[in-house]
Amino acid sequence: MGRIPMSNSWAATVLTLFPEMFPGPLGISLPGKALSNGLWSLEVRDIRDHGIGKHGQVDDTPSGGGPGMVMRADVAAAAIDAVARNDRPLIYLSPRGAPLTQARVRALAAGPGAVLLCGRFEGLDQRVIEARNIEEISLGDFVLAGGEIAAMALMEAAVRLLPGVLGDHASTREESFAAGLLEYPHFTRPQTFEGREVPAVLTNGNHREISKWRLEQAQSLTQARRPDLWGLYEKHLSPFEKKGP
Amino acid sequence: MGRIPMSNSWAATVLTLFPEMFPGPLGISLPGKALSNGLWSLEVRDIRDHGIGKHGQVDDTPSGGGPGMVMRADVAAAAIDAVARNDRPLIYLSPRGAPLTQARVRALAAGPGAVLLCGRFEGLDQRVIEARNIEEISLGDFVLAGGEIAAMALMEAAVRLLPGVLGDHASTREESFAAGLLEYPHFTRPQTFEGREVPAVLTNGNHREISKWRLEQAQSLTQARRPDLWGLYEKHLSPFEKKGP
Repeated sequence: MGRIPMSNSWAATVLTLFPEMFPGPLGISLPGKALSNGLWSLEVRDIRDHGIGKHGQVDDTPSGGGPGMVMRADVAAAAIDAVARNDRPLIYLSPRGAPLTQARVRALAAGPGAVLLCGRFEGLDQRVIEARNIEEISLGDFVLAGGEIAAMALMEAAVRLLPGVLGDHASTREESFAAGLLEYPHFTRPQTFEGREVPAVLTNGNHREISKWRLEQAQSLTQARRPDLWGLYEKHLSPFEKKGP
Repeated sequence: MGRIPMSNSWAATVLTLFPEMFPGPLGISLPGKALSNGLWSLEVRDIRDHGIGKHGQVDDTPSGGGPGMVMRADVAAAAIDAVARNDRPLIYLSPRGAPLTQARVRALAAGPGAVLLCGRFEGLDQRVIEARNIEEISLGDFVLAGGEIAAMALMEAAVRLLPGVLGDHASTREESFAAGLLEYPHFTRPQTFEGREVPAVLTNGNHREISKWRLEQAQSLTQARRPDLWGLYEKHLSPFEKKGP
């Protein structure tokens, strides 16, 4: 099931109750090609291997009552402790965590890899989160059935930033969040689509005007759709770059 | 490849350049069981079937220059127009979109389903977004290699809310974001883990005290980790429920 992380490549280890979900979509397209080429490695460990008793029990009813089941601290700790961490951060995917940002993705991609613990059921016993000092990361303010798809999203986001994975390095420099802004709108051929033209500025060959237009578009879009990001962006603008309201 | 959406069940249609990614993790565990049981349906359409010329071209270089490729408006429109919408919202997964929230997930789960357009490359020609009035949804403030894993996350979040999918309905009522708060911490057996005890309040059998403790924990956690959510939550609290700073 698992592959041994290669030295010198970004190494992901996933702890899950559903190892058969991996690599799944990460075995295809860009991350899949990078995986085959050894630009990153994926080790998948079954938490149930550390289950208790002959049935490999991994969960139990919540202390204090309530619906669902909770993953046991001792089982999760055993699964965690069996992994060679190699200075990699230990992350639990959970809606209670810090929302994932592109800045965190960049930091993860710049490091040796990540160990990703995928929850199922109601959640994970709080004591193992504290005892193992686990970083909790949330994909967003919604609830999944488990951490597996969230782990896939995190790995895909990190892997595409690894050197050699994207053909053209420039394409991660201009994209959404790279400068704290949403990305400007894209256009391509045909010149006319259902009576709608490609904006003239993009076809006049004046690269300075094109860059200016794209920045203005990115600013307007961010201001309109994401006042939270816009506020942060504005704080870092010099007075000369400030755009009127 | 595709399955015909069943009447009377939540119907997802995915438009993608990588149909082989689906159902992937959604074919396993809770969403997979629900799929087999007909509680939802998944139709997967290959955008390349609508590509241009004998090579099925779907993308072209960005107008105005820059790295990468942009998905053509005419190709995307043809793929969209070939789908039987049946009053389902048409969603493009993109970091420029509105961040996905549990409220949007609940609304989607309460409706007939969703048509999900997965981007690849630099992005999608802006004109088709406008011409087809496409709703743009973002998983969070990070960049993926394509919309496929984001679409999986959205579907998993919606499917687990469908009637009959989760064994115990109560478990979606107390979870993160259901009341605008992060979820309280969970504990289960063993009573002692590495010297750490289950909090005494959870083992005394007083359900009123347990509920009070859980609410306070959820409030403290949200206040500490997510001042943004806490601000929204506080606005809706009556003066009698207000918690001191």
